[in-house]
Amino acid sequence: MPKHPGSQRREALREQLRLPEGERIDLAGYDARATPGAPDGKQAGLADTARSGRRLARLQERLWAAGTAGDRRRLLLVLQGMDTSGKGGTVKHVIGQLNPSGCRIKAFKAPTEEERRHDFLWRVRRALPEAGEIGIFDRSHYEDVLIARVRHLARPAEVGSRYGLINDFERSLAEDGVTLVKCFLHISPEEQKRRLLRRLDRPDKHWKFTPDDIEERALWPAYQEAYELALERCATPYAPWYLVPADRKWYRNWAITRLLLEHLRELDPRYPEPGFDLAECRERLLEQP
Amino acid sequence: MPKHPGSQRREALREQLRLPEGERIDLAGYDARATPGAPDGKQAGLADTARSGRRLARLQERLWAAGTAGDRRRLLLVLQGMDTSGKGGTVKHVIGQLNPSGCRIKAFKAPTEEERRHDFLWRVRRALPEAGEIGIFDRSHYEDVLIARVRHLARPAEVGSRYGLINDFERSLAEDGVTLVKCFLHISPEEQKRRLLRRLDRPDKHWKFTPDDIEERALWPAYQEAYELALERCATPYAPWYLVPADRKWYRNWAITRLLLEHLRELDPRYPEPGFDLAECRERLLEQP
Repeated sequence: MPKHPGSQRREALREQLRLPEGERIDLAGYDARATPGAPDGKQAGLADTARSGRRLARLQERLWAAGTAGDRRRLLLVLQGMDTSGKGGTVKHVIGQLNPSGCRIKAFKAPTEEERRHDFLWRVRRALPEAGEIGIFDRSHYEDVLIARVRHLARPAEVGSRYGLINDFERSLAEDGVTLVKCFLHISPEEQKRRLLRRLDRPDKHWKFTPDDIEERALWPAYQEAYELALERCATPYAPWYLVPADRKWYRNWAITRLLLEHLRELDPRYPEPGFDLAECRERLLEQP
Repeated sequence: MPKHPGSQRREALREQLRLPEGERIDLAGYDARATPGAPDGKQAGLADTARSGRRLARLQERLWAAGTAGDRRRLLLVLQGMDTSGKGGTVKHVIGQLNPSGCRIKAFKAPTEEERRHDFLWRVRRALPEAGEIGIFDRSHYEDVLIARVRHLARPAEVGSRYGLINDFERSLAEDGVTLVKCFLHISPEEQKRRLLRRLDRPDKHWKFTPDDIEERALWPAYQEAYELALERCATPYAPWYLVPADRKWYRNWAITRLLLEHLRELDPRYPEPGFDLAECRERLLEQP
């Protein structure tokens, strides 16, 4: 690609962030402040994110256009990570670069009574992107092997069975034309503490805080273990996990923008050919007053 | 407001664009290229739109934050207008300035079989914004008195009864905390012809065109009449109609951004007070490793 010197190196971000399949993961071994593959420094990173974001928006339009003509492909970005890791910030800054018409965003909270009456994938199936759309999950079905495991919200055997069910589900999505981009936003406990304290210090951030966040933080080791298991068991060829170092917000936004861009480039959606006679339509239009 | 000289004049945009209630409307009397209330020229308009868009995004965050603390208020932008009048462009350029997490966008197409089995407002109720959200309807329940009237998709008496049903429905929304901002994007037939021809000329725009657009355009006078009736009968104190001249895209985006800003300023949403003891939480956090 002679037009974008350096892009060769950057095209490999998927490979740099992709977690191995079926191997034990030690999250403590990953530096949350790292910036693998990024341009040199924050300013260059911000500029490159904006540039990539514009390319991404153009490809999104093609995906959408193709979807209007029968191309059933779509993309699903799954965001997981500890509190304050930046799932909401990713939606605001990365997805905010796209045309909102083509985005289907779902933030999963504690399941409602109705949702609890169904299997854990029921509510997830109802929130999937349709043809041509980019779906975004802020939390997801992975909560059912994360908080469910740590907080004992289901019997251990039941939680244990869910990894396989998730893999089956994600395989069926992939076979149905869904490109899965699963991102684990990896922050350090120190950075989380800083961010929580900031929420307490700033009146315009109080609303993002609840005292539960402190109880959750006390369970940090149990959550890391639950994540390690989920990342090990559910990193598959058809639905890989990407570990995104997230202590630096600019890097997180840059990396996820690039990951989306790389995947959409590979999909290479095309504007559909017109299914009608252009010249005849032009003539009929010109005849009208 | 000494901080924003000139804003006094501009605060009045709502009043400038608001259609009278219960009066006969003659759409031919409104210039689609007009730019009422706008800054002087396109460049100034674009800059002012960006500035207003940033303010709008800040107010949107407050609305959302208030919604997490029991404030049930929300806003619903209804976009109506002839083909190519810029409903989709408004979502892209105006709503694209907001945090997509807080936006609930629904584009209404021809009703599905399931939707046709219910009353015409059924699908609309299911797409309403929730507390703290900004809802956007690209087309709406008004199609049921527009294309339904022009194309005889329902008996005349049935269409006739819908104006009152719409008013009752919108009144109930307003009483339930929904601020309705209904915008009619007013374009001229000449501008529509130009835009349709452009869709035929550009391969990246073919997908936006169907030969049906030509048949629809041939019914221009019938559609204008149907719009005039709807605007006359459904402009109410609790759900006014705004006529937005839309031949100039920059003006359309500027005006709708300003209308939303004026309405959100009036709502004046506030960050909620914390429902917990800040000092105690800070202490507990600092004690954690």
